[in-house]
Amino acid sequence: MNVTTAIEKLNELETKMYAYASAESALYLDGATVAPKDTAEGRGVALGILAGESHKLFACEETKALLDFLGENKQELDEKLNRRVELLKRDYGMLSKIPADEYMEYARLTNDASDIWHRAKETSDFSIFEPYLEKLVAFNIKFAGYYDSSKLPYDALLNEYERGVDMKYLDNFFNTLRNKLVPVIKAISQKPQIDDSFLHKHYPAEVQRKFSDYLMEVMGLDRNHCTIGETEHPFTLNFSSQDVRITTNYDENSLADSMYSVIHEGGHALYELGVDRELDYTCLAGGVSMGVHESQSRFYENIVGRSEAFVKAIYPKVKEFFPEQLNGVDADMFYKAINKAQPSLIRTEADELTYCFHVMIRYEIEKQLISGELAVKDIPETWNSLYKEYLGVDVPDDKHGCLQDSHWSGGSFGYFPSYALGSAYGAQMLANMEKEIDVWGGIENGSISHVTEWLKDKVHKYGCLKEPSEIVKNACGGEFDPNYYTDYLVSKYTSLYNL
Amino acid sequence: MNVTTAIEKLNELETKMYAYASAESALYLDGATVAPKDTAEGRGVALGILAGESHKLFACEETKALLDFLGENKQELDEKLNRRVELLKRDYGMLSKIPADEYMEYARLTNDASDIWHRAKETSDFSIFEPYLEKLVAFNIKFAGYYDSSKLPYDALLNEYERGVDMKYLDNFFNTLRNKLVPVIKAISQKPQIDDSFLHKHYPAEVQRKFSDYLMEVMGLDRNHCTIGETEHPFTLNFSSQDVRITTNYDENSLADSMYSVIHEGGHALYELGVDRELDYTCLAGGVSMGVHESQSRFYENIVGRSEAFVKAIYPKVKEFFPEQLNGVDADMFYKAINKAQPSLIRTEADELTYCFHVMIRYEIEKQLISGELAVKDIPETWNSLYKEYLGVDVPDDKHGCLQDSHWSGGSFGYFPSYALGSAYGAQMLANMEKEIDVWGGIENGSISHVTEWLKDKVHKYGCLKEPSEIVKNACGGEFDPNYYTDYLVSKYTSLYNL
Repeated sequence: MNVTTAIEKLNELETKMYAYASAESALYLDGATVAPKDTAEGRGVALGILAGESHKLFACEETKALLDFLGENKQELDEKLNRRVELLKRDYGMLSKIPADEYMEYARLTNDASDIWHRAKETSDFSIFEPYLEKLVAFNIKFAGYYDSSKLPYDALLNEYERGVDMKYLDNFFNTLRNKLVPVIKAISQKPQIDDSFLHKHYPAEVQRKFSDYLMEVMGLDRNHCTIGETEHPFTLNFSSQDVRITTNYDENSLADSMYSVIHEGGHALYELGVDRELDYTCLAGGVSMGVHESQSRFYENIVGRSEAFVKAIYPKVKEFFPEQLNGVDADMFYKAINKAQPSLIRTEADELTYCFHVMIRYEIEKQLISGELAVKDIPETWNSLYKEYLGVDVPDDKHGCLQDSHWSGGSFGYFPSYALGSAYGAQMLANMEKEIDVWGGIENGSISHVTEWLKDKVHKYGCLKEPSEIVKNACGGEFDPNYYTDYLVSKYTSLYNL
Repeated sequence: MNVTTAIEKLNELETKMYAYASAESALYLDGATVAPKDTAEGRGVALGILAGESHKLFACEETKALLDFLGENKQELDEKLNRRVELLKRDYGMLSKIPADEYMEYARLTNDASDIWHRAKETSDFSIFEPYLEKLVAFNIKFAGYYDSSKLPYDALLNEYERGVDMKYLDNFFNTLRNKLVPVIKAISQKPQIDDSFLHKHYPAEVQRKFSDYLMEVMGLDRNHCTIGETEHPFTLNFSSQDVRITTNYDENSLADSMYSVIHEGGHALYELGVDRELDYTCLAGGVSMGVHESQSRFYENIVGRSEAFVKAIYPKVKEFFPEQLNGVDADMFYKAINKAQPSLIRTEADELTYCFHVMIRYEIEKQLISGELAVKDIPETWNSLYKEYLGVDVPDDKHGCLQDSHWSGGSFGYFPSYALGSAYGAQMLANMEKEIDVWGGIENGSISHVTEWLKDKVHKYGCLKEPSEIVKNACGGEFDPNYYTDYLVSKYTSLYNL
């Protein structure tokens, strides 16, 4: 084997991996959007086999030999190739430890579990989801050992979503948030509450659909490369930097839910669409980590989307879509309403301030689940008591409690903390961005392209070319410091509520 | 190898083939429905690779050895297994001759060509589609040689869509239709024409969507296993007997277009949903041939859907959906309008009587294309002159001419005749059905489940367990005879137009 042949082989292998990933994405997207209800079984069979085939293709001796050979010839490879080899070696080390049959069984399980979770949520019946969740937890504990047996299982899982992050790191992080934010929440509870009742008038789905189109236009999302669909739980899915999909969910009794889902998922999409096209069909395509991904989606959703400048710039247009519902509501009232802080039940509908407490609750539960301290059957009780303790709210049923999120049904344990981390990265990126460009001047004029250009240059374009921590440092202009996030929130909410 | 192990291997191979087919279907469905416009490239790369992988999996020495071994042990296999081995050997003989790289290139080509065809049709610009069509024709001529080099190329292609059918057979078939039907068309042209202007009032897509739901309910389509989507060109796609999708296209200036598309595709769907579930994940799953498939779809569309009994049974409900548009229109006027016979430009909108002439035109062109007599660049001219000759209509542009159908862009040459054959099979099946059950009594009462039960028993349940000709004979109660079809049409139109 010579280097040229080896590179060709690597390209061939990675394009094949891309093809399998595309197939799995297409089946997943179909299942989540238009597939008839009673069809999960057949899709599960197909997904299981495709997972097995791609696993076999990658986790084999031939791949090992290829990666070893390229690793020994580093000096002849450019930066991108070396990074591809590095990441693939890491993946290989992990995946080659998972037996193909376990990998296939897990793919089938997550497909079935997603289907059952939907039903369980619909009927608020945790008991039908319980046996699936038990299997998912058991698999993840086992996988954690494959990923890195020197780590505690939950640390190994966390590391998959955000490299370098572990429980110690997160305990510190969440403590900082708790110490700084609890007093603000308490102070707000003493103040007269903001009226946001007009956000809960009747907002027909049909008009909301057109409003989504407008929001995507404001965000600069190219509709020839990005479409919007409808699912129970909004998500973003990318086939390549040229083909990204977002979804939302229309609640006819809420304007803000879908509005901020579209902006959130649109932020994920801008990240994916901004990755250097040259990285397509390789393992460097796509966002680098869940934390960095959430830093972008929550940057657009909150830092931009819930900012006074943005809201006031788009408000005349919002009113054109919903003149009756917003009759008598001015831009300032609207800005305050979409920022109303109030402990609540549903994470995705939570305000910016209390949001991280929803994440902490899930983090606590995952820690105990993966360590074996908490049994799956006891999740609802623990969930409900943590909601009471952290947020002071009573959970009426599991639909509005531990069945609200899709993550566990898809096999993701250790994902949630990245929402809070991402929010914190974003606040620090803002501070750095403000030093370099006139962030708010442009936004006041209704344009956010300068923000996207800056983020593209500091974050998006790299794909997985650099480690998450390098990208964060690069965009934050220094080491990560959660105080930027708490300062941002304290300042925003002090002003909003005249604390 | 013993027989038990061999059967296990066969099951494994076929389930894998099912998984690849599912992946390709999901990507295809996505591309035809919700994918953003400029994303065909990435999908093409994925589809090309998946085609190559499944080809490699199937067309290898191991498969040959397995099929040979099972073929030598026929006596130990049941009917289903023997039929699977027989069909797979046939496929193997064909596919193993197509080199993997050609197979992959072809998969990419059809993906790209479908994308370009959409654009070409939109802008009525044949020239951009021409180079793709040239490649598709060249591939099909080459493939015909792989399929059966002892046959003329077009005969080899026809045989793939309807085993046993060739040009000699079709020339005779179409001559019969021409001789019997041309006088009827001439006689109608001397009569006062039926008024169908009310079918072309404004029919909002939104209401048509709800009307589609109603039609699917009347047809007895189980929505937990069958959904409806929207595409430019309606189609049916099946993942398994448990998961079928149909699509339609809403023209707000026409009620009948989507109405009869839904019933037509619904007919395909009932066939797929009626296949014995035990055949899933094997090569016996799904409809047996294009001709038999069209016999079912056109049975529901025309023989049932455009019958006086059916139209009069559902008409009160139709009027509930569209009270303003159908104000002053009674059931008899509606029945006559949806059966109005008039030479026209678009195949899918053609009436039952002139429909087969649209097919004949495509058959003539395909014959000449595949034999090399006709160059791709000359298709528009030939198309237009055949429409003038056969139907007496002037084609205003290629959008309403040779770019109207998707078949060629998907690589299907030899498919069209199955529409006419299927219609003819259906008419003979009706004659046999009338001997066994009270077809019209049930339909007059608004139910068609007895028809579906009969067809399920005679056709659907078998999947590919029998040859198309056996199934046709079984359902027709004897050898196929096109005179049943011409008699049916002559009688229907003589009565409709008082000839």
